[in-house]
Amino acid sequence: MKVFSWPARVYWEDTDGGGIVYYANYLRFLERSRTEWLRSLGFSQQALAREPGVLFAVVSIAVEYRRPARLDDELEVTCEPSVDGMVAIRFGQSILRAHEEKPLVTAQVRVACVDAQTMRPRKLPDALLNVLQ
Amino acid sequence: MKVFSWPARVYWEDTDGGGIVYYANYLRFLERSRTEWLRSLGFSQQALAREPGVLFAVVSIAVEYRRPARLDDELEVTCEPSVDGMVAIRFGQSILRAHEEKPLVTAQVRVACVDAQTMRPRKLPDALLNVLQ
Amino acid sequence: MKVFSWPARVYWEDTDGGGIVYYANYLRFLERSRTEWLRSLGFSQQALAREPGVLFAVVSIAVEYRRPARLDDELEVTCEPSVDGMVAIRFGQSILRAHEEKPLVTAQVRVACVDAQTMRPRKLPDALLNVLQ
Amino acid sequence: MKVFSWPARVYWEDTDGGGIVYYANYLRFLERSRTEWLRSLGFSQQALAREPGVLFAVVSIAVEYRRPARLDDELEVTCEPSVDGMVAIRFGQSILRAHEEKPLVTAQVRVACVDAQTMRPRKLPDALLNVLQ
Repeated sequence: MKVFSWPARVYWEDTDGGGIVYYANYLRFLERSRTEWLRSLGFSQQALAREPGVLFAVVSIAVEYRRPARLDDELEVTCEPSVDGMVAIRFGQSILRAHEEKPLVTAQVRVACVDAQTMRPRKLPDALLNVLQ
Repeated sequence: MKVFSWPARVYWEDTDGGGIVYYANYLRFLERSRTEWLRSLGFSQQALAREPGVLFAVVSIAVEYRRPARLDDELEVTCEPSVDGMVAIRFGQSILRAHEEKPLVTAQVRVACVDAQTMRPRKLPDALLNVLQ
Repeated sequence: MKVFSWPARVYWEDTDGGGIVYYANYLRFLERSRTEWLRSLGFSQQALAREPGVLFAVVSIAVEYRRPARLDDELEVTCEPSVDGMVAIRFGQSILRAHEEKPLVTAQVRVACVDAQTMRPRKLPDALLNVLQ
Repeated sequence: MKVFSWPARVYWEDTDGGGIVYYANYLRFLERSRTEWLRSLGFSQQALAREPGVLFAVVSIAVEYRRPARLDDELEVTCEPSVDGMVAIRFGQSILRAHEEKPLVTAQVRVACVDAQTMRPRKLPDALLNVLQ
């Protein structure tokens, strides 16, 4: 099965005074890829927030920063989801420079489905569970 | 009358690969000062959003970047509000390095009071109009 | 002459608690478009920083926020440059929702060419002046 | 021994469209606390970058998001460092709402000392090793 991947370009906004991407900003790249994976399956987070009234909340993240990304770099951000019980999804993710094999950054992200009003855990939408299983 | 001022420290998150504060991030400093000015008068934006149900939306901004701020700089961010009709506030703002006289950045910001649901213009809360007049 | 335009997608990172794009974050979209315009002409900002040793610094910006962008919006960010003396470029820019005619945000941005070491004004690279004139 | 702690206030810039702090932005709060811990010991990161010519680079981070922070929240960000070999520091960190006992967010952060030019690992400055041991 082909791994989902989404491109990202490094702009000034992403860098810090050390000349490399600021460590928190890789998390923005990681989320873009998860959002685009959902979108590629036809899910709109805004539509899910209205019906059935759920949001996705990051519960935990573990990130390894191996080599830095720099201004103008073309990145690929992968996203390999697996279901984790009925309320959470685990994502294995990597950030690579385009056409390179060794990732700059790897991450394990656990995302829970929560009620849009109460923020309490909710069962993942069936349509999404079907895709993941 | 003493001008309202709020301190800000420059951290890695604020800088970019040029070694200076990224141009969009000065707008975060400007907003912190406006928010703290409101708070100093006893207004909570979250309370106003519930009752009478209004938010503040930036309508326009003009910024002059004269000299850059750098990592670790201690800044002072001033905020001089004046009422502009019944629905808007104009803020003259400056960002200075602490203990310096010449501003690094100056800004004119126009903020409108809008309905929290419809985002349409709404009259400023009376208590705030009283303070401004 | 066709106006340069670059797409941007609104992600969670761009929004704030009001459910709309945070006012400073539109400046990131504006800069991406200016950077991509330069790149489309074959200029690399990293190469220019080494030889002839220049950076581009935003000197002033005026932004009108007309209507807000929201999560998942597909935006187009235009960029119309004109030379301003020998050391600066003026950009007229707009942010539009894709397939709409009325801009959400319009901006006038003045960018100066500065020495990468001293941050003092420097003449624009000839190759860039030739393109702009 | 008293745990180092640094306050942070949640502003609009930190929130996202879900009405809570965006998950990447907690990493900014964490870094501010680490920077202020260093500063409290008399170390300037800018001075260290010049002499002996070292920077600190985050190597890995593990974050647990337990409960969200919201607009206007007053936070305390703790920072408990321990030396990890000769080139790295481990930080146990928590983000709490002021006057609460249960953390909103906990994090383990590993930071390496690297050469400011080559980005290769370098021994921690002796003065810092002395403090940590």
